Amino acid sequence: MLRVPGGRVVATSDVLVEGRHFRRDWSGPYDTGRKAAAQNLADVVAMGARPRALLIGFGVPGDLDAAWAEQLYDGLRDECDLLGAVVAGGDVVRAPQVILAVTALGELPGRALLRSGARAGDVVAVRGRLGYAAAGLDLLTRGAGGPPHLIDAHRRPRPPYEAGAEAVGLGATALIDVSDGLVQDLGHIAAASGVRIDLDGAALPIPAELGPDGRTFVLTGGDDHAFAGTFPRGTALPATWLAVGRAVAGEGVTIDGRPHGLTGWDHFRH
Amino acid sequence: MLRVPGGRVVATSDVLVEGRHFRRDWSGPYDTGRKAAAQNLADVVAMGARPRALLIGFGVPGDLDAAWAEQLYDGLRDECDLLGAVVAGGDVVRAPQVILAVTALGELPGRALLRSGARAGDVVAVRGRLGYAAAGLDLLTRGAGGPPHLIDAHRRPRPPYEAGAEAVGLGATALIDVSDGLVQDLGHIAAASGVRIDLDGAALPIPAELGPDGRTFVLTGGDDHAFAGTFPRGTALPATWLAVGRAVAGEGVTIDGRPHGLTGWDHFRH
Repeated sequence: MLRVPGGRVVATSDVLVEGRHFRRDWSGPYDTGRKAAAQNLADVVAMGARPRALLIGFGVPGDLDAAWAEQLYDGLRDECDLLGAVVAGGDVVRAPQVILAVTALGELPGRALLRSGARAGDVVAVRGRLGYAAAGLDLLTRGAGGPPHLIDAHRRPRPPYEAGAEAVGLGATALIDVSDGLVQDLGHIAAASGVRIDLDGAALPIPAELGPDGRTFVLTGGDDHAFAGTFPRGTALPATWLAVGRAVAGEGVTIDGRPHGLTGWDHFRH
Repeated sequence: MLRVPGGRVVATSDVLVEGRHFRRDWSGPYDTGRKAAAQNLADVVAMGARPRALLIGFGVPGDLDAAWAEQLYDGLRDECDLLGAVVAGGDVVRAPQVILAVTALGELPGRALLRSGARAGDVVAVRGRLGYAAAGLDLLTRGAGGPPHLIDAHRRPRPPYEAGAEAVGLGATALIDVSDGLVQDLGHIAAASGVRIDLDGAALPIPAELGPDGRTFVLTGGDDHAFAGTFPRGTALPATWLAVGRAVAGEGVTIDGRPHGLTGWDHFRH
């Protein structure tokens, strides 16, 4: 968050490298654009902010079709359109593989939601799907067949962007978009807030269609860009928010009071 | 430029890919950091803005020493320190080669300087060195010996950052930092402003130490991050600004009224 004379701006930046964060043979350019935009727009929304603009740093290999770049742009633009944001500029360079360096800028209509605001006693709640994108990626990785909507979930997230303004309105104390996996991202809130987050194993939504590894996908899969927040005890949560745990004294993330033994997305393993 | 309630922010983004925009065997990590920061800070300054923060997207190959990354950060930070800006965050990802995706954010204390403000009759003036970095890169490319300060100029630009506030104070109608070469960057002003820019060949500073190709380096070399601006006719320019031409009716960039036949940095050739 940047305070400027008379206002505040939030900014976030991600780098996506072909072969690590996406594969051109697994996702088309349009979906790649939607997804690259979504993950940064969701980051802005998770601060309680309103996305306004994207800057795109675009690394282009020599063999890339112009049509690929045009469809990528269409995807970026259409995802921005959902929120009234625009692709405002950027940089185009030659590169050995496709690189997408996305910066999202947003304005804060009200208070900022930070990772550091959770307090012991808060309710932890989730808005949006968990595990679907991870299940789809697993199907692609194994070359296995499976429900097309799982693969679609990997290719194009559909973050419930309204979660940001809702969370502000509900008095949320912290909010994050689930990009690295639920346990890992709640761990960021726990660390920044100086609390432990204890998930209620029985309250976690684990749809049968995610298959035998559903629980792992729900706890560690990130690309759905659900939102996870903390709310003062007694907050009347609408049905779109699912309470999945509590903030308590301590540190880290536990499930039913016990260590979870799970890892989320490792930025250096992939 | 992003207008937010009560304020305005400028943002700019560049991607630098190892092997194309820098070479680890030609420049150390500290200088690479200084240069990556400088080129984005200069972009912010060229809008009449005050740089406040950088976001760094950092692509890291598996074999990269931690010390390399630390020295890179030191360089980024020290360049920011010159202007009271900070490295505020970013993203770290695994990548096949070093990637630096730099976003710079700044605030506008007064009016913004845009590329579109030049008017026929304006004086075109330059603040800062031209051609030195290109001469240094030429020495490195040819494996030739030469004055160390030319190679230093390639490794670490020293943009005259004060040019931004000076240009605002002098009533500049447009300003740009010379990153793609003088003729090419003045071409951006000419196109955005709907004017022709005619350079005075005899007024161009072509130091003998740049060697036999000095004129080409001065007209097409970019990495020194000098600033080029347009000022209303009759502006009393201080000695730090060198008048090199005029904006006139028409389009494009000419030298002594004739086509220049030169090209600047081609983002796809390199």
